[in-house]
Amino acid sequence: MGGRTVKSIGIGVIGAGVMGAEHARILASDVSGAHLVAVADADPARAEAAARGARATTDAEALIADPAVEAVLIASPDATHHRLVLAAIAAGKPVLCEKPLATSTAECLEIVTAEARSGRRLVQTGFMRRFDPAYREMKAAIDDNTLGAVRILHCQHRNAAAPSWFTGAMAVTNSLVHEIDVCRWLLSTEYTAVTVIPCPSEASNDPAMFIFETAAGSLVSVELFMNADYGYHVHAEAVCAGGTIGMAHPAVTRTRRNGAEEGSFPANWVPRFRDAYRLQNQAWIDGIRGGTPAADGSTAWDGLVATCLADQIVVAMTTRERTRLTLPESPS
Amino acid sequence: MGGRTVKSIGIGVIGAGVMGAEHARILASDVSGAHLVAVADADPARAEAAARGARATTDAEALIADPAVEAVLIASPDATHHRLVLAAIAAGKPVLCEKPLATSTAECLEIVTAEARSGRRLVQTGFMRRFDPAYREMKAAIDDNTLGAVRILHCQHRNAAAPSWFTGAMAVTNSLVHEIDVCRWLLSTEYTAVTVIPCPSEASNDPAMFIFETAAGSLVSVELFMNADYGYHVHAEAVCAGGTIGMAHPAVTRTRRNGAEEGSFPANWVPRFRDAYRLQNQAWIDGIRGGTPAADGSTAWDGLVATCLADQIVVAMTTRERTRLTLPESPS
Amino acid sequence: MGGRTVKSIGIGVIGAGVMGAEHARILASDVSGAHLVAVADADPARAEAAARGARATTDAEALIADPAVEAVLIASPDATHHRLVLAAIAAGKPVLCEKPLATSTAECLEIVTAEARSGRRLVQTGFMRRFDPAYREMKAAIDDNTLGAVRILHCQHRNAAAPSWFTGAMAVTNSLVHEIDVCRWLLSTEYTAVTVIPCPSEASNDPAMFIFETAAGSLVSVELFMNADYGYHVHAEAVCAGGTIGMAHPAVTRTRRNGAEEGSFPANWVPRFRDAYRLQNQAWIDGIRGGTPAADGSTAWDGLVATCLADQIVVAMTTRERTRLTLPESPS
Amino acid sequence: MGGRTVKSIGIGVIGAGVMGAEHARILASDVSGAHLVAVADADPARAEAAARGARATTDAEALIADPAVEAVLIASPDATHHRLVLAAIAAGKPVLCEKPLATSTAECLEIVTAEARSGRRLVQTGFMRRFDPAYREMKAAIDDNTLGAVRILHCQHRNAAAPSWFTGAMAVTNSLVHEIDVCRWLLSTEYTAVTVIPCPSEASNDPAMFIFETAAGSLVSVELFMNADYGYHVHAEAVCAGGTIGMAHPAVTRTRRNGAEEGSFPANWVPRFRDAYRLQNQAWIDGIRGGTPAADGSTAWDGLVATCLADQIVVAMTTRERTRLTLPESPS
Repeated sequence: MGGRTVKSIGIGVIGAGVMGAEHARILASDVSGAHLVAVADADPARAEAAARGARATTDAEALIADPAVEAVLIASPDATHHRLVLAAIAAGKPVLCEKPLATSTAECLEIVTAEARSGRRLVQTGFMRRFDPAYREMKAAIDDNTLGAVRILHCQHRNAAAPSWFTGAMAVTNSLVHEIDVCRWLLSTEYTAVTVIPCPSEASNDPAMFIFETAAGSLVSVELFMNADYGYHVHAEAVCAGGTIGMAHPAVTRTRRNGAEEGSFPANWVPRFRDAYRLQNQAWIDGIRGGTPAADGSTAWDGLVATCLADQIVVAMTTRERTRLTLPESPS
Repeated sequence: MGGRTVKSIGIGVIGAGVMGAEHARILASDVSGAHLVAVADADPARAEAAARGARATTDAEALIADPAVEAVLIASPDATHHRLVLAAIAAGKPVLCEKPLATSTAECLEIVTAEARSGRRLVQTGFMRRFDPAYREMKAAIDDNTLGAVRILHCQHRNAAAPSWFTGAMAVTNSLVHEIDVCRWLLSTEYTAVTVIPCPSEASNDPAMFIFETAAGSLVSVELFMNADYGYHVHAEAVCAGGTIGMAHPAVTRTRRNGAEEGSFPANWVPRFRDAYRLQNQAWIDGIRGGTPAADGSTAWDGLVATCLADQIVVAMTTRERTRLTLPESPS
Repeated sequence: MGGRTVKSIGIGVIGAGVMGAEHARILASDVSGAHLVAVADADPARAEAAARGARATTDAEALIADPAVEAVLIASPDATHHRLVLAAIAAGKPVLCEKPLATSTAECLEIVTAEARSGRRLVQTGFMRRFDPAYREMKAAIDDNTLGAVRILHCQHRNAAAPSWFTGAMAVTNSLVHEIDVCRWLLSTEYTAVTVIPCPSEASNDPAMFIFETAAGSLVSVELFMNADYGYHVHAEAVCAGGTIGMAHPAVTRTRRNGAEEGSFPANWVPRFRDAYRLQNQAWIDGIRGGTPAADGSTAWDGLVATCLADQIVVAMTTRERTRLTLPESPS
Repeated sequence: MGGRTVKSIGIGVIGAGVMGAEHARILASDVSGAHLVAVADADPARAEAAARGARATTDAEALIADPAVEAVLIASPDATHHRLVLAAIAAGKPVLCEKPLATSTAECLEIVTAEARSGRRLVQTGFMRRFDPAYREMKAAIDDNTLGAVRILHCQHRNAAAPSWFTGAMAVTNSLVHEIDVCRWLLSTEYTAVTVIPCPSEASNDPAMFIFETAAGSLVSVELFMNADYGYHVHAEAVCAGGTIGMAHPAVTRTRRNGAEEGSFPANWVPRFRDAYRLQNQAWIDGIRGGTPAADGSTAWDGLVATCLADQIVVAMTTRERTRLTLPESPS
């Protein structure tokens, strides 16, 4: 027998809130070819807890600079993404940044430009739905043209409950942004216009319907409901010229009791997309190890598109008129 | 033991096409308290076949006048409805008229007025979905407020294939008209505005999305697809403040073969709504026997509303702007 | 136009308990071609209530003799069936008898013999499942050989709760008897042997598994559970050489609330088999009007088979040994 | 920041057939904390292909002895398991052995004894279903007593097609053995008796029903069908005193086309249990790293029980009599 060096990527995680801690757990315990080197958080106790024996720090820049950290995962507050992603690019380290990539189009454009100048694909935006098995089966059927051209893609994004201070604009930038990314990925097209029709009775604009038109000639119809009460539920159905493909109910068991057969919904997105997060992170690691970024990963440009369109949709929500959607020129 | 006269209502059916023949069959074989007296059709052979031993005629007016005909079901071409319904009212006979009640608002208004002048509720419009068990379970849950106020009612109306000469306007007046009626009945409200967004790639406006706003503050979102290919499929789901209620797949069995488990769709509306037609006709007969019209039957006014709104929606489809929907004053 | 006499069959219902009252309601209100003439019950108030304006009596024999009664439906206590069916045969009147046809094989044989001597098919046994749309779709697929030969037919018969005094023998004669009839009808075969394996922990033999072998070479596996708690649930699945066909969940809507999507079960058999009862009774009436008994109706011989096998299965339940099942010679 | 050594377990895989290659892939690419050191197979090309850059060898004993191999996964032909597991125990290395642990009870007992003498828990038997998410949800509900005591556990094990030379005995030792293991794990009990009833028409005893009685007082009813044609389908449903819990259809999407809505089945067990294999292997690695064997892993004793009972069931299949099932004394 001969020998071979096994390469494991050292990861630093920035942010140890719900998603940062979950990413640290995944990278430490659930993926192949990586190990957790350090976790940074402004709260040292939170960093310590998420680190699970790896280093803990309050200094995100030091973490990025640490030579043992070969790649960076950013799950800190949204406002810090721009600065930290740029720091990772400057350090020449691959970075997976939770959505949003940055909170304005200008900041996103700075990142896209910096990455382009670095000459390497270093940035992946954390739109994990692209790795969800159900979305991937739909994407495969659409790409294979099994059912003919997509005419309408229906989506429902339902959260059980939003905090009382949650506004319609936040629903767009926090939640709808996932639909914006995953639907243009599913359909391999760009949006050309949107019409937003909120539920007339609700001052909060919740729920609301968003009807997108696309360059490919299909419609994307999204119901966004932040207070759907019964649970967290994300659904998509592609209506094609020759049939439809949609998601099955996500639960793996059915229970019969008290006069009914039931399948459960999770309380939030973490259990619903647990596999998607793991597979996203595995693909990110595999890309780093193999030297080519994950084929289906959301790029810096994809992150820009999501932020840029969310801004325009927030405006369209107030005018309630059909609004043309535009994107900046890509620097590359 | 004492005695009692058992009363059976003599019915005349006008029109012996697909629906007329089906109505004749239902009235002759599937409902209690009625018998088929006569069938009228311009084509005597077709009338004869549908009559199943009862009288056949080509003279619709003579059928209405026939003393053995105590109630009239109209399933003749749309353009004849107005004249025949007025004739039935003039004869003082209860009439169940297939949709549309008449092809213009003015004609509908004439019927509404004539009925009001007769001093009796004689007219039922054939919106049979109100008698479909699935719609009725949804209506009961909404009326009982089991799940809180309805926020959005999502509807899909899919036909397998439309004839090539079928236009978007015909899709509205033939198919969408069912959604118009059943949704305002489900929600006990009126529409205030509509936005129509057809699929950009399709010159035929098929499929198209229709987003209605209602006086009750809810939205009604309808996908209308006349060439859905896979089968005839009508679906509705009410998204409420505290949960949702929607239709189950309509098939009573599931088959596993060739790598899949499948539940079938019917080829057209006749099998899908067979029970609804029977229950509608039974309720109509029961109403005649009992002296009070069927509680949930679509009235002449409901027929007018459907025709009147369909006209406005056809226009809204071309402007693609949010369009306020209005109704005439009710004469009563 | 010519004329035609419309024939409506006058029906007498014997027994005004849950099922008798339901049959009276169906015959008075839900079927074509019949009218309710009289209801007999030992309790005059109960008879009166079920009669809905038709005659009420405590004298079942007088009801059978009444010339206005052209056909008899028997839903009185089991012990009276034998006598009353024989009386109807003697009067030359068609009779639909709720299961069991009679409580012993000898009594059933007497009925079969009396009917054979009358020279007419007068008796239908009330195994209504043969008219349930789901069972009929399964039967059609099996008869068409769509999926190849049936290898195993799996059945579940679950009641929400049985009275405390309910014994395993009663479960067989009251409930399993439906499975006995409908499975041999589905498979067009006879049983050759049964093995009964009750749940070891339950003194009441509830639940129990019954494995039947058939002359056609298939197995029938039945779970009988009288205290399944969650609701009334009857399920069947035919496992064939080339696939399976089974029942869909019976509810027509799905509700999402409290963290789950649910489809309801009825509390008992009446709502589950409402359509089956109506279609059975309609087929019975149609058979009388047309002069030929309902094609799929359970005959007097089928009633005998069910009673005769139930007796043998009650014994097999105590021995727990594989037991050969036998039938008497048919007198015809 | 401080430092920490990250420990990755070096794995040797023996056998590079379908399952060996799949295990090598999982260990190299899908699990955390392990790396593939070497693959052994009698066919050097097959070993090379499965090794994916790690060492390849034809010498299984040398692989076990290799100091870089810290743990061994055995997926070689069944007859070699006994010898190789003993060699791993002798080398003091953790071993995960594909089922069967060995092909006779005596050989299994030798392994159990050798492991006990080693003073460490070194052996895990590859009954991966214990790690399948659907089985685990069922197990959690049963352990929590959410629905009351289990009365009957219904199982279906269906393969699309078996080779023509496949016998009923092979179906038991290859396929039923999974049901034997997972059901006693689900119910935390032992079987006391079995009754086997094969489909009468099939010389091959396929399909067959197996009814187990358990010490806990529940029944386990298993349909084993090696030629179910439509696909690979494993289903389980626990019928409890207060309700049922069963598996949902395994597909994550539903397609509508050609008149039906369908959910697919995989062609074989690899896609159906892909997650279960990964999670099993991850739990095995985690146990090695943490110093305590995987909590739910099938032990050497569990492997013995499966082999020992399969032998007795093969006999019971020929006698068709209720057969008491017994186990040897445990050496520990």
